[in-house]
Amino acid sequence: VHTTLRSSSREVVIGSDQPFCIIGERINPTGRKTFAEQLRAGDLSQVVADAEEQVAMGAHMLDVNMGVPLADEADLLARAIRLVQEHTDLPICIDSSVVEALEAGLAAYDGKALVNSVTCEEERMERVLPLVKEHGAAVICLVNDETGIPQTAAERLEVCKRLVDAVHGRYEIPLEDMVIDPLAMTVGADPHAVSITLETISGIRAEFGLNMTLGASNVSFGLPGRHALNAAFLVVASYVGLTSAIMDARTAQTIEACRAADILLGRDEWGTDWIAAHRQAQAAATA
Amino acid sequence: VHTTLRSSSREVVIGSDQPFCIIGERINPTGRKTFAEQLRAGDLSQVVADAEEQVAMGAHMLDVNMGVPLADEADLLARAIRLVQEHTDLPICIDSSVVEALEAGLAAYDGKALVNSVTCEEERMERVLPLVKEHGAAVICLVNDETGIPQTAAERLEVCKRLVDAVHGRYEIPLEDMVIDPLAMTVGADPHAVSITLETISGIRAEFGLNMTLGASNVSFGLPGRHALNAAFLVVASYVGLTSAIMDARTAQTIEACRAADILLGRDEWGTDWIAAHRQAQAAATA
Repeated sequence: VHTTLRSSSREVVIGSDQPFCIIGERINPTGRKTFAEQLRAGDLSQVVADAEEQVAMGAHMLDVNMGVPLADEADLLARAIRLVQEHTDLPICIDSSVVEALEAGLAAYDGKALVNSVTCEEERMERVLPLVKEHGAAVICLVNDETGIPQTAAERLEVCKRLVDAVHGRYEIPLEDMVIDPLAMTVGADPHAVSITLETISGIRAEFGLNMTLGASNVSFGLPGRHALNAAFLVVASYVGLTSAIMDARTAQTIEACRAADILLGRDEWGTDWIAAHRQAQAAATA
Repeated sequence: VHTTLRSSSREVVIGSDQPFCIIGERINPTGRKTFAEQLRAGDLSQVVADAEEQVAMGAHMLDVNMGVPLADEADLLARAIRLVQEHTDLPICIDSSVVEALEAGLAAYDGKALVNSVTCEEERMERVLPLVKEHGAAVICLVNDETGIPQTAAERLEVCKRLVDAVHGRYEIPLEDMVIDPLAMTVGADPHAVSITLETISGIRAEFGLNMTLGASNVSFGLPGRHALNAAFLVVASYVGLTSAIMDARTAQTIEACRAADILLGRDEWGTDWIAAHRQAQAAATA
């Protein structure tokens, strides 16, 4: 299955035969006090800096989230998306829990976006999916429902089945435009968290063959040495079937881990991309 | 299955419920011209330096190979093993293609060693396995035979079956003292090399449940960015069932990858080892 996203001038394809799709997580005010204050004051200059940094490191797409409390999120998101599109040609993942913000973001976006996200909750689907369909976008579908996050892989697969029935069956979104989020939780809070996520990923690949993405940095939350943990997680997740991640795209170690998985798993034959990236990094270091 | 190795004062256990066993590869003159010359001149001081460096980085065992052309390898190996045992308490992997050297190494070693290695070649088994048995050692068994290295996982599993029949069945070495080497080849020479190795590892885990080790650095031979490739390979290999590797134990990135796999895969509950290693590294950095 190929999920194709587009900006006004560039196309990115997510798929198991494609390079692992790196979606930069940085443009998000969560946990960034100064950035949140700037956004509240209407100053979006940091958005441009964050976009350019992630593009330079090798991100394939950019997640844009403007979830600032006590601000007009819809207006901010529309402005941020226009700004990012002025400064880069990467396709965007429009990220909000507020439906009005997704609507404004989709209206502002020029291309085929990835919408982040729906869950298997009827009310959320009813409001988000018609927008996705109207704009011909793709959508990230989280495997949780009204009852919360399932604790076992089997239950998550069951939610995935219901998502396919609803999103594809009832709302008629093409299967290739569904990107499943198998949910990555913090291993510091539950030693089995990563095993459950990996089992969910394998299961979704085997049963549905759909593309997947997740917030990879969650895994290492609260632990020291997060880059090494994120890198290790991304490699194994890629091996079992994850085709994309919303992730730290500002750290060489995590970006390299995804590219290393590509060459080791036969998706970068003869290391063409690996060697090119290495040469580029060397040139940048000596420039 | 638990494979237990011992020095005179320390025990290391290899097993799927244990931390991934890091066997330092450095004490080996292959590709090290200066070191080879020193050894030929009878100067073993670098052996001590290499041992101490790998111990400090967190190796669990040390591979010792004295394969210097035009030198008395048996004498060098016996001396090197005594020297390493004087300076560290890590169990040793006695590594030679020369049976007389293995014999001298085993005689010099105080503890239960890991012998590197036998293949599924009748002549090699006839000469090495009685020594292994006599000394109560464990032995690395490579899944190749007289016809060379099998190109598919299925063929490697077939060789593994014959190794079990011979090493355990005929030579009466306990199954837990067989450590299978599924053979890691260079991905730069064959895009499928790593996939075949990973499939072999999964198969050996499923069919035989034996411990495994391999020379991890082979994977990245000839490519740039070897540390990142080795790290990524070790994480995935550990996930599919590899329980040990003869590897670069002088690079934080490869060591960290093995420890990250431990915590992510539930073998280091609540990150006790991970956090301790991180604190130790911080203390060393500020000392």
